[in-house]
Amino acid sequence: MMSESQTIRVGILGFGTVGQGTWKHLVENAESLKKILGVSVIPTRASVRDLAKDRKVAIDADALTDDSFSIVDDPAIDLICELIGGIEEARSLTLRAFANGKSVVTANKALICEHGEELFSAAEQAGVRYAFEASVAGGIPIIKVLRESLVANEFPLIYGILNGTSNYILTRMEKEGASFDEVLSDARDLGYVEADESLDLDGVDAAHKAVILSYLAHGMWINLEDIIVEGIREISNADLLAARNLGCKIKLIGVIRRNFENNHISVGVYPALVPVGEIIARTDGVYNGVSLTGTVVGTVVLTGRGAGQDPTAGSVVSDIVDVVKAMKGMTSQPKLLHVTPDECTAATASEVLGRFYLRLYVDDRPGQLAKVAECLAEHEVSLATVSQTPQGEDSAASIILTTHETNEHSIELAIQALENLPGVKQSPVLFRMFDPNGFTE
Amino acid sequence: MMSESQTIRVGILGFGTVGQGTWKHLVENAESLKKILGVSVIPTRASVRDLAKDRKVAIDADALTDDSFSIVDDPAIDLICELIGGIEEARSLTLRAFANGKSVVTANKALICEHGEELFSAAEQAGVRYAFEASVAGGIPIIKVLRESLVANEFPLIYGILNGTSNYILTRMEKEGASFDEVLSDARDLGYVEADESLDLDGVDAAHKAVILSYLAHGMWINLEDIIVEGIREISNADLLAARNLGCKIKLIGVIRRNFENNHISVGVYPALVPVGEIIARTDGVYNGVSLTGTVVGTVVLTGRGAGQDPTAGSVVSDIVDVVKAMKGMTSQPKLLHVTPDECTAATASEVLGRFYLRLYVDDRPGQLAKVAECLAEHEVSLATVSQTPQGEDSAASIILTTHETNEHSIELAIQALENLPGVKQSPVLFRMFDPNGFTE
Repeated sequence: MMSESQTIRVGILGFGTVGQGTWKHLVENAESLKKILGVSVIPTRASVRDLAKDRKVAIDADALTDDSFSIVDDPAIDLICELIGGIEEARSLTLRAFANGKSVVTANKALICEHGEELFSAAEQAGVRYAFEASVAGGIPIIKVLRESLVANEFPLIYGILNGTSNYILTRMEKEGASFDEVLSDARDLGYVEADESLDLDGVDAAHKAVILSYLAHGMWINLEDIIVEGIREISNADLLAARNLGCKIKLIGVIRRNFENNHISVGVYPALVPVGEIIARTDGVYNGVSLTGTVVGTVVLTGRGAGQDPTAGSVVSDIVDVVKAMKGMTSQPKLLHVTPDECTAATASEVLGRFYLRLYVDDRPGQLAKVAECLAEHEVSLATVSQTPQGEDSAASIILTTHETNEHSIELAIQALENLPGVKQSPVLFRMFDPNGFTE
Repeated sequence: MMSESQTIRVGILGFGTVGQGTWKHLVENAESLKKILGVSVIPTRASVRDLAKDRKVAIDADALTDDSFSIVDDPAIDLICELIGGIEEARSLTLRAFANGKSVVTANKALICEHGEELFSAAEQAGVRYAFEASVAGGIPIIKVLRESLVANEFPLIYGILNGTSNYILTRMEKEGASFDEVLSDARDLGYVEADESLDLDGVDAAHKAVILSYLAHGMWINLEDIIVEGIREISNADLLAARNLGCKIKLIGVIRRNFENNHISVGVYPALVPVGEIIARTDGVYNGVSLTGTVVGTVVLTGRGAGQDPTAGSVVSDIVDVVKAMKGMTSQPKLLHVTPDECTAATASEVLGRFYLRLYVDDRPGQLAKVAECLAEHEVSLATVSQTPQGEDSAASIILTTHETNEHSIELAIQALENLPGVKQSPVLFRMFDPNGFTE
């Protein structure tokens, strides 16, 4: 499987931020990588969309191609980094690389989320590796920690901030009182927002990562369509302030809970009020943070930069090192999972318990609050705190309330009823109140 | 190297908290370990000091011995966990195990700190593994992350809370205003304090761990005698309050800095004022936290329980898994280091820059503060903040001051001069002000 010359030639598919960073770090770390691996690892070819465009790293023109398949099929290339993103082309390239006996390192969470089952099994059949540390949480080595370090654990709770862009926006809104649109515009200028903005703003990117973590921890591929995926567009400065008064910060979190008594699993990505005592609540800016609660180790929290060229490229390089070790026979194909994948079932909405935060925009007239409370009570949702603020326009008021524990099904019905309640002027805004000790029923 | 029966029999030397925890987790996780490894891992024998004593885990009487060497020499035992602690006996047992071709998993930071060079080289010569994840930071997988995940990095700064007991004491003093003696007594009752209390209270345990981290990150064995090692006994409630007013918390931290321009390295363990913005400042109770700043990844912070049966035993089990993989040929002996070990030199005291916090107990008379300031200025230490509080007894006052940047040598001379200054009633208390962006000259 090794070139006789004791050189591993790396082909990089996609030469954007992370691709160029990977190239750069392979060049800069050539000496120390040779020391670790006993072989030279040489970035050799890269594919781009537009051959004419200027690059920030030094690369020979003849190392570039606009035909990714020519790299995958090039017998001189030993290892592939798939960094083009997207689904269909990336899937074909990855499968072709496996068929050619080449291991693939990827940062493509969308692809793994959608076709992970097929791709991992294809890699196993081909006797090659499919390494994906860079796909979740940038530079935080969460995949390795989950797969290799905490093997004696089962994980009742994994949660955290998995998308740096949305966390950057929320942090600036919270700290500066700036509006969502204002900060989003800055984030665009800084190049923090993906071309498909929905990935960052609507929780989709975080959901891809939550699905991958859920698979690694519990061996179950959750279908993205079956879980709650909500983004940050509904969060107002008033909510951030109200959360602070409740001792919380609003963060977009991915949450993976498993109840080992009934083997229910619940996965979701949504904005939640996280108590400020949690490290995750205080993980700000473009940082990501993942809190793992294991049955043996207790709670371990990892934080670090979630995005950007260097952290992600650093994870790609770590994966390249692991794959080259495997190619050299220094390690064999590891078991992807050490869990029993067929035991758990997704909890239904009425089995997922929690407390909720609601913001309503209502007619400011006597009795309106009572009607809201009554409507919630009819759906067995009881109130914990309420505050009503006149808005000074249209004789309207804003009501912010938090509930006692109820379940997802009840709150959904209650929201529907509130939408139809006379005097309620807009669809209510709902966030979850994260409880590290909470659980599915 | 493998028993033909595809069973790995584990011998545990030392059957205290961690030893019993390891036995328990090996039994409880037998099935999932077999799934990962393809072989059964059976805890088979354990050595104790006192055969008559009751144990909390179920173990056959004939699995117990008070002769650790009989386990190391038992041909039926494939793998050794050295959990007896201490130096000389542990060293002999470990070397004997290596000579017998057996890999050793250890949590013994004192032993590694003192004899690491000899032991790692003996393991290498014997072709066996010496695994030590459990030796640093309990359940936090810091060794694996440093050695395997962040391979593309060099580390200008590694720092953190490495001793859970002292952190527990400081946290309770800070949150409750309780006195050091009061909390220490509780910590003893809870079994948090090692038999040799100096290990926890005088920074020695944290220093052992800092030396190990320094070796892994920079390839250099620092001699414990050559570094600053200070404990928490001098910290008063007044200091904790003063620190808070300065936007800091006082934490006992291990700090490993390297300047890659002049290749100076500086290692120390001491109480420091850490800005509350740092996750490490807010890592409370028995938790440990390690902040790694890498040249590629940026800053990654890991927190988790630093002590206790389960987290430490969980790390032992993770190491057992890694070692068994190696025995099965699933992995080969990894390079211990990927750094060039011979490049760096320890910075001298005058090359280590920093800001300092000083508490003085002085005669409360006009001009005393001016005399203190003058004395400091003579040693080129200039003041940043000063506050003087009358103590209402003996006409004495407490002066708390912070300095601008100076170096360790100057502050040492200044302290000596202050000790001899008329009107200064006790030896001044000195803490460092931690600056994540600081450096050695």
